[in-house]
Amino acid sequence: MPIVRDQWYVAAYADEVTRTFLARTICNEPIVFYRTQEGAPVALADRCVHRRFPLSESRLDGDKIVCGYHGFTYETDGSCSFVPGQDRIPRTARVASFPVVEQDSFIWVFIGDPALAEQREIPRAPWLNKDSGYITSCGMEPIRSRYSMLVDNLLDLSHETYLHAGYIGTPEVAQTPMTTRVDDDANIVYVSRHMDGAECPPFYARSTGIDGLIDRWQDIEYHAPCLYLLHSRVAPEGVKPNDDGTDPQGNHLEVTYAITPETDNSVFDFWAISRDFAKDDDEVTEFMRKNNHTVVMQDVDALNILEAVIDKEPEGFQELSIKIDEGGLAARKMLKRMSEAAGAA
Amino acid sequence: MPIVRDQWYVAAYADEVTRTFLARTICNEPIVFYRTQEGAPVALADRCVHRRFPLSESRLDGDKIVCGYHGFTYETDGSCSFVPGQDRIPRTARVASFPVVEQDSFIWVFIGDPALAEQREIPRAPWLNKDSGYITSCGMEPIRSRYSMLVDNLLDLSHETYLHAGYIGTPEVAQTPMTTRVDDDANIVYVSRHMDGAECPPFYARSTGIDGLIDRWQDIEYHAPCLYLLHSRVAPEGVKPNDDGTDPQGNHLEVTYAITPETDNSVFDFWAISRDFAKDDDEVTEFMRKNNHTVVMQDVDALNILEAVIDKEPEGFQELSIKIDEGGLAARKMLKRMSEAAGAA
Amino acid sequence: MPIVRDQWYVAAYADEVTRTFLARTICNEPIVFYRTQEGAPVALADRCVHRRFPLSESRLDGDKIVCGYHGFTYETDGSCSFVPGQDRIPRTARVASFPVVEQDSFIWVFIGDPALAEQREIPRAPWLNKDSGYITSCGMEPIRSRYSMLVDNLLDLSHETYLHAGYIGTPEVAQTPMTTRVDDDANIVYVSRHMDGAECPPFYARSTGIDGLIDRWQDIEYHAPCLYLLHSRVAPEGVKPNDDGTDPQGNHLEVTYAITPETDNSVFDFWAISRDFAKDDDEVTEFMRKNNHTVVMQDVDALNILEAVIDKEPEGFQELSIKIDEGGLAARKMLKRMSEAAGAA
Repeated sequence: MPIVRDQWYVAAYADEVTRTFLARTICNEPIVFYRTQEGAPVALADRCVHRRFPLSESRLDGDKIVCGYHGFTYETDGSCSFVPGQDRIPRTARVASFPVVEQDSFIWVFIGDPALAEQREIPRAPWLNKDSGYITSCGMEPIRSRYSMLVDNLLDLSHETYLHAGYIGTPEVAQTPMTTRVDDDANIVYVSRHMDGAECPPFYARSTGIDGLIDRWQDIEYHAPCLYLLHSRVAPEGVKPNDDGTDPQGNHLEVTYAITPETDNSVFDFWAISRDFAKDDDEVTEFMRKNNHTVVMQDVDALNILEAVIDKEPEGFQELSIKIDEGGLAARKMLKRMSEAAGAA
Repeated sequence: MPIVRDQWYVAAYADEVTRTFLARTICNEPIVFYRTQEGAPVALADRCVHRRFPLSESRLDGDKIVCGYHGFTYETDGSCSFVPGQDRIPRTARVASFPVVEQDSFIWVFIGDPALAEQREIPRAPWLNKDSGYITSCGMEPIRSRYSMLVDNLLDLSHETYLHAGYIGTPEVAQTPMTTRVDDDANIVYVSRHMDGAECPPFYARSTGIDGLIDRWQDIEYHAPCLYLLHSRVAPEGVKPNDDGTDPQGNHLEVTYAITPETDNSVFDFWAISRDFAKDDDEVTEFMRKNNHTVVMQDVDALNILEAVIDKEPEGFQELSIKIDEGGLAARKMLKRMSEAAGAA
Repeated sequence: MPIVRDQWYVAAYADEVTRTFLARTICNEPIVFYRTQEGAPVALADRCVHRRFPLSESRLDGDKIVCGYHGFTYETDGSCSFVPGQDRIPRTARVASFPVVEQDSFIWVFIGDPALAEQREIPRAPWLNKDSGYITSCGMEPIRSRYSMLVDNLLDLSHETYLHAGYIGTPEVAQTPMTTRVDDDANIVYVSRHMDGAECPPFYARSTGIDGLIDRWQDIEYHAPCLYLLHSRVAPEGVKPNDDGTDPQGNHLEVTYAITPETDNSVFDFWAISRDFAKDDDEVTEFMRKNNHTVVMQDVDALNILEAVIDKEPEGFQELSIKIDEGGLAARKMLKRMSEAAGAA
């Protein structure tokens, strides 16, 4: 699956971008990230225009980057304001600057034609903000697999039963049918699975305090290509939200995955789990962080293995898809359409 | 030299295949090996038909494999008996199953068209069986070289004089002419070298107790492509076998090498040395194991080096072959013919 | 930039070539170096003609190499004088022998058509000899970058100001214009930069004892492709050499770099710094060795990084060159012409 360009991607957590350079490759583009003295995030191509030295191996002079090899000096917009040994700055002395936006605890970067950046909306994950009323545990894992395998993985939660057995998986997940809906205008795939009267996995029993069977709703909202949201509701069996939308007995987990291709064969997996219950209980926070990290690492291990398998596989291997793959196949189709429309990277 | 398909190969020692999965690539085919509860060996393609997860990363449920990613469940014949989220099993849900035979302490696997498995005879090495009257020391070394270099190495024992000097090599080996015979119907190359009145290398002096010159016979029987046998007889100078075939003063060593390509550029070297003398002497057993391991590792090091040389060598390098290469060249010619007949891997 | 063949290159320091084999790849040719019992350096292709075993993994028998695999035996001129198992030596049993010369503390080897070796002059660096009146500190660093990047680096000293700030770099270096002269008959690029009344970098202040401003002359003489000389003069401001060429108040540093491609993407950086002042002061010797090693390692790190950048860079990246690159561009042009004339490797 080609990488979709002309899109916003999560480049980093906001607190990763500081006055010290962060070098990160996003969609095959080596980029250096930093903040100005006033705190604005900056994203420049990480390659000096002179002899391609990485600017991330350089130093900051105020808000300017001074190349560590020969001293070419760049402003925050990528223009060059000093070259050694001569007064005239060549007209082409400029590195690419990438549109950046800080939102919902992330630094977003626009990959593709910058003229399109304004037209593309950045999907929201407001529960990640500190004043949102949610408590968030989060992390980031680099995976040595093509990004489409992470999309596959997340769109089909039936793997929870097997890969995450004992953590978030129970037999019900794989057995419950799901409904898939595609919004081709908004580039969103919806996958829903409502399990009523389900066994409560240990992970949720411990964190919600519910004793007995549960109604467990999983509503996926995949904003292709970059952001995956899982609206998860866990409530005692039979308890529905009120007609006015309030839901005092429901426990809500907003699971966020930002999916950012690093290269054609590697992806950054930004994961966050936000809850609106047991909010003052630090033990629950730590429990959720630790458990979700374990679950994420089970996925990371599986995807690293799969990429290695694909890498050595003979030409023409044919996958077999079944009903549970409906959401994943819809996502693939959407990504294919979007990448063709944008021009693939 | 292409890998010869439609052939039996040694996949493992019998005791390597248990109720815990053994993942091993044989002739570029990733295979998972295990035993049923009744003890029968099973060999299946190590790649789930759904999303290619390695079955060796899964778990056994009785005799079935339950894929660790989404739960696809396979019977010992490779057919699928469960898929998640639906009752209907797709007709194509099946992984390849490989014919396996347990014989002479090895698990043999057939690589190629399974319909041909019965027609191909598995060569024998009966002295490896526990009740054979022989005592065996054995091991296995993976080598990062194409399998044909191990064939070269074993077919030309004149390298013993140089590479294994001080172990099994003496000047006589390189100096004694050998006779080569090819049986194209049975796919066997015979190479014989009889050294009468030869110096006794320390390795044999210590293990047979012979003091003085020896008659040393080396009769190679290479069953292309997979099994190499060296019938070695060491006797005091001038002592011949009796006319009735008995040979009470001769010491017999049966040296077995199973040559199993892992990939185009790596090979498994299963080695065993079986003797019919000093059978109760554990010191001799340990001495032979240690010495033969040292000798094998000298070959492993040399072949690893050679593969690295070939890897960096310019196109069109021309080897120079001489008389000692007669057996090796005959084996190459046979392997070429066999691989062309079978369709190369 | 292709490697220039039909040229002399520095293969090693003279004291690296002994009675123990030195295996080193020069311009993509694996070569084994050693000395005869009489001390003459020998350079042979490091690949037995029989089964390509590296001769450097073999043993010396007097002045002959006995291959460690099957005993093929080679004389110092590469001819074969013994093969196992037969008396007749095949006519083609011979490995390539490379012309070698020991001069100015280096072992030089001729890469290309040996018939041209005599016609090509080996450039001189006489101050490296023990009786030259200079004290030398030296070393060698392998770099994982194409050799042309080391040429770029050395021909443009304006990087001293940035990459070597605090060591040998000062603002003046980058600011002072330089003059470039090309001698296409002798294959030499000259780059000169004379800084009068310049700040004295700590490195030179400590080693010359000069207190105050200096006249600092840097006269580069690059003998393409293999030898780079930097004639450096540091004197108190305003002090010129005498009309007769003597220069008692000048401090002279002869900086030598031998640039030897190992492969298309790696290069050996032989570096030496020779001085004619403070000659009996061991502290200065140690200080210069340590400081120059630090400076060289800054270059090594930068070039390793650059090669990695190039390796992942999209096709068609366009460098931007400015005035400071004049010498480097002249060198590139000369190397291109020479490699085309010789036939590229």
